[in-house]
Amino acid sequence: MADDVLFEFLHMEIVGHVYKEQATREDIDKERVTCVSTLEAMGFRVGQGLIERFTKDCPSFKDDLDIMKFVCKDFWSTIFKKQIDNLRTNHQGTFVLQDNTFALLTQFSIGKQYLEDAPKYLAFSCGMIRGALSNLGLEGVVTAEVSVMPSCKFQVVIQKT
Amino acid sequence: MADDVLFEFLHMEIVGHVYKEQATREDIDKERVTCVSTLEAMGFRVGQGLIERFTKDCPSFKDDLDIMKFVCKDFWSTIFKKQIDNLRTNHQGTFVLQDNTFALLTQFSIGKQYLEDAPKYLAFSCGMIRGALSNLGLEGVVTAEVSVMPSCKFQVVIQKT
Repeated sequence: MADDVLFEFLHMEIVGHVYKEQATREDIDKERVTCVSTLEAMGFRVGQGLIERFTKDCPSFKDDLDIMKFVCKDFWSTIFKKQIDNLRTNHQGTFVLQDNTFALLTQFSIGKQYLEDAPKYLAFSCGMIRGALSNLGLEGVVTAEVSVMPSCKFQVVIQKT
Repeated sequence: MADDVLFEFLHMEIVGHVYKEQATREDIDKERVTCVSTLEAMGFRVGQGLIERFTKDCPSFKDDLDIMKFVCKDFWSTIFKKQIDNLRTNHQGTFVLQDNTFALLTQFSIGKQYLEDAPKYLAFSCGMIRGALSNLGLEGVVTAEVSVMPSCKFQVVIQKT
């Protein structure tokens, strides 16, 4: 539990810091986009580093779905102490990962009050997924959406090479 | 292990980000001071949050030394997976906490090559100690020094009230 808390607190600090630092700059217009991409880029590098460690002693994966299952189970549970609750795919490179109680949103009130703040707290994790997949040879785009707190859907669209 | 890695990677990202963002600003002069205090402030808030959780079910402490022992043992091992190796005090409010293999420095080469970079990676932890102590009623100043990697000494000077 303590570890989760350390990560969650540190994550909150980063989000707060990135948004605060942008607010003091002049280019307020670009604020939101820049913050999200800053956080996403951090997550990307952390995801790359983590997956390298986690897969050190793993056999290789047989296909994209196999990789995605690894991310949903092993990768996710090491970071967030639970697996992704639901993985769906159209078998054409799009995957939807649903976490019904996403750790970085559980500190929020369950109502709609903070719904618009949620994306701030998802950018880093989108980056982590993208970084992990990238190191496993899958380049793609990862987005997230929240409709009901603290549940969250990550959509992964793999780019065909 | 995985948890440590997550924290370490995230910590590295923060340090990198804070220094990079400062480098792009005009006030290069103040660069170093500002970065250190930004990181220290983040650590302070994280330390406050953590100690609140960790001491939730703890009996109260009988004196400053008792608090410091708690920080060296329980607090430190939850965060860094090991206790502080050596705690010394002059019994007048100054404490020296020595960690012979400080987790945030172990990724560095052991030689002197990166010795001057070490302070960047200590500011956050100084803040964490200060935040933890502050929530336990001890206001003080926390500094760190490294003479041989990856060993590190934190000096805590408690301000008499």
